[in-house]
Amino acid sequence: MTDDTQDFRPEARAPRGFADKRARDLRAERAILEAVSAVYERYGFEALDTGAFEYADALGKFLPDSDRPNEGVFALQDDDDQWMALRYDLTAPLARFAAQNWETLAKPFRRYAYGPVWRNEKPGPGRFRQFIQCDADTVGSARPEADAEIIAMAVEGLEAAGLPRGSAVLKINNRKLLNGLLTAAGVAGEGQKLAVLRAVDKLDRLGVDGVRLLLGEGRLDESGDFTKGAGLAGKAVDSVIDFVQAGVLLKDGGGRSATLANIAKVVAGSAEGDEGLRELELIDAALTSLGVADDQAFIDPSIVRGLEYYTGAVFEAELLLSTTDEKGAKVSFGSIGGGGRYDDLVARFTGQTTPATGFSFGVSRLAAALRAAGREPGGAARGPVVIINFDQAHMGEYFAVAGELRAAGIPAEVYLGTSGMRPQMKYADRRLSPAAIMLGGDEIAAGTVTIKDLDLGRELAAGVADNAAWKAERPGQQTIPRDQLVAAVKTIIGG
Amino acid sequence: MTDDTQDFRPEARAPRGFADKRARDLRAERAILEAVSAVYERYGFEALDTGAFEYADALGKFLPDSDRPNEGVFALQDDDDQWMALRYDLTAPLARFAAQNWETLAKPFRRYAYGPVWRNEKPGPGRFRQFIQCDADTVGSARPEADAEIIAMAVEGLEAAGLPRGSAVLKINNRKLLNGLLTAAGVAGEGQKLAVLRAVDKLDRLGVDGVRLLLGEGRLDESGDFTKGAGLAGKAVDSVIDFVQAGVLLKDGGGRSATLANIAKVVAGSAEGDEGLRELELIDAALTSLGVADDQAFIDPSIVRGLEYYTGAVFEAELLLSTTDEKGAKVSFGSIGGGGRYDDLVARFTGQTTPATGFSFGVSRLAAALRAAGREPGGAARGPVVIINFDQAHMGEYFAVAGELRAAGIPAEVYLGTSGMRPQMKYADRRLSPAAIMLGGDEIAAGTVTIKDLDLGRELAAGVADNAAWKAERPGQQTIPRDQLVAAVKTIIGG
Repeated sequence: MTDDTQDFRPEARAPRGFADKRARDLRAERAILEAVSAVYERYGFEALDTGAFEYADALGKFLPDSDRPNEGVFALQDDDDQWMALRYDLTAPLARFAAQNWETLAKPFRRYAYGPVWRNEKPGPGRFRQFIQCDADTVGSARPEADAEIIAMAVEGLEAAGLPRGSAVLKINNRKLLNGLLTAAGVAGEGQKLAVLRAVDKLDRLGVDGVRLLLGEGRLDESGDFTKGAGLAGKAVDSVIDFVQAGVLLKDGGGRSATLANIAKVVAGSAEGDEGLRELELIDAALTSLGVADDQAFIDPSIVRGLEYYTGAVFEAELLLSTTDEKGAKVSFGSIGGGGRYDDLVARFTGQTTPATGFSFGVSRLAAALRAAGREPGGAARGPVVIINFDQAHMGEYFAVAGELRAAGIPAEVYLGTSGMRPQMKYADRRLSPAAIMLGGDEIAAGTVTIKDLDLGRELAAGVADNAAWKAERPGQQTIPRDQLVAAVKTIIGG
Repeated sequence: MTDDTQDFRPEARAPRGFADKRARDLRAERAILEAVSAVYERYGFEALDTGAFEYADALGKFLPDSDRPNEGVFALQDDDDQWMALRYDLTAPLARFAAQNWETLAKPFRRYAYGPVWRNEKPGPGRFRQFIQCDADTVGSARPEADAEIIAMAVEGLEAAGLPRGSAVLKINNRKLLNGLLTAAGVAGEGQKLAVLRAVDKLDRLGVDGVRLLLGEGRLDESGDFTKGAGLAGKAVDSVIDFVQAGVLLKDGGGRSATLANIAKVVAGSAEGDEGLRELELIDAALTSLGVADDQAFIDPSIVRGLEYYTGAVFEAELLLSTTDEKGAKVSFGSIGGGGRYDDLVARFTGQTTPATGFSFGVSRLAAALRAAGREPGGAARGPVVIINFDQAHMGEYFAVAGELRAAGIPAEVYLGTSGMRPQMKYADRRLSPAAIMLGGDEIAAGTVTIKDLDLGRELAAGVADNAAWKAERPGQQTIPRDQLVAAVKTIIGG
């Protein structure tokens, strides 16, 4: 050991905003990633993983001459004075990778990726500075069918991860529709268009009337603060409101087709709007061919997402599940992920516009939602069978039993602490062991083994099992011939 | 897009020492981690993942008042001025976690972990600054059987990952043996003991005569440089040499028992040596109970490993596989991982000695070794079936076919670029597609589909398949009724 043991004793704590993940969380995370990856691979997407760091200039958030580019990301200066930063998403590294390898890639390049991303933000309850994202993107195809595939995979992926059909929905929009509508209405400035998007993005929170005010002169909120509006004229405000309300839900007798017909009326007459409409029609057709129904993915003209990022279609996955908080109030999970078409990201490096589309979702968020909905991803926790350790002299017997169980695919361990029988039982219980195995001197001499059914104990305690009914076929404790051990444990685990 | 597109075009390149991993590498990595994790879980070890960052003081390499603790690690200062560093292994975070949660953990705490670690070192060919480690550790058991389990899991894990029995071996030693021997020989200073360890560690490179010189006065190498020796007296040098040569290999008619008998003669009479011997005897007995044979794990008194880190048993996994370099020379892979008992690491935080033992291996290194041995981890690469895209008007048909194949579990995609037939075929070939599907207007009208067997093409090109023999049952191209598509593709993939 180094000398600082004597000199200095650091406090054992994880850095702020970084969580230690135990077995249950990791089982959930891995089950989700495995299920979703299988979907992506079935769609012909290949795995890619880039390193944790990118050069800060490649992340695109910084001016190259900024002194210390650490806003929002974890950045440090390399030996050669170049600034590197931990990736804050999986899209920026993809754009860098695609630009770097464009000549040699089979195109369109279809890749999926998952892994940690880092955000240097203020941590808080449930707000972490490291979390797992899972993405799929197609780079090099401008076809709307590429968007449709991404949407179809998101639908299928969320179901594969354990969300029952009807508990999540993909909402689709296209940036070009509103842009075209505004151009036709004489709104030319980018700043004014962004103000409109920001107003529309508040539809959920402020309702139609609030958005109407924000599209026009502005809005005075309850606290007396005035938010300046986008300054649209009355007729343009009406058009935008008509547009964001053009979605026709299945329950209202509509679906993607009905919404597209509605949208056509509002955006008619602008080239960009027509282009956006045509793209959505092709997305709709491809979704139908892919078997994605109106209840799984619908068109919602009020969806905005990342303001300056997307250039065409945008998607958002919304969880329809809800749970209740400590006070019994209903809590909606809301957005679980999203994406869209971002045709300019590779161009940062190459100068060439490169069509790209993708979808990203947060894995921990999905795991939390599944759990709240009563669906533990990866199944219920189960610990190893624990072989009670009575006597050093019999260690060989204990290990032999553990080996037999493991060979049968049953997790098992010999207790290797120094405590007595009761703490060992408590240990087994805390590990969620299905059974404890006792091999005392008498049992060894008689060629028998005693099994205590800990699952049954937990079931009885929880009122799941009825003591009398179970006793006959599955006693709480039984002493059996040693060669029946594996079969007896299998009965407990299977039961 | 932000304004810097116009102002500045960054170069698309990954930071130095960080590799982009494509599908083949990731498939190998995942197959290894899945196989090894399954072994760990069967032994009752639970998964843990800590965040990428630890506070620098918790990593134990730094003095708390150092100005910029960035030697060897990637460190940065958090908003609250605390230094954080990316983990450089998985053991330091485990020690921090165990210390932080000691009161509430079920003990002994058996955990496995895998994930990236980061080293801020000079990158070079094959030397990366981020790589994947995979560890298993038991914290809170001083029993030598805990070491034996770790060794048994390493043996079983490497075999589960694809290393055939006989292609790797675990070598075991115990720090206490040499320490005891030296104490008995009157060597008391820690500095002199370390010099002895350093000399022994050069056995592979310098041979017995070289080590003998380094144990005594010193050694003059070929270049004329003199290395000062440990300064042992002649008798002590003889004892150390006897000790490091005490290993008796199976091929020489021995094994763990014979080696232990040899060691007993050399270290007899020192309390620490006797303790180390007793520990190795218990490890040997437990290994035998666990079914680990002499050819899978043997005792090698010349094994040293991390000088100031381990406090008792040490293990090293050595690959016996070799490959040849570009010049045809034999290249041994050597050490693939190692571990041992480190009873002082948790004490850094708590002040209480906490027994711990573990093993760590490098996943990329193992993947490279398996590959060089002709065993592709995760199996051979296979791309999706590619549906050739002739005409926008038939997109619905293409997607329907892709959906049928996916529903049958066969990865499939519709080509979504804009190139013609030949580039599409080239694309399919580069993706390692087993087959290309052609649905032209004629086929659609006739209810048929044409399949081109690309696997067969590759086999013919490689001389694996014989053209005439294959033709009858598996033609290179065939037009069949549409409802036989899935079956025909399965024949190609299965064949």
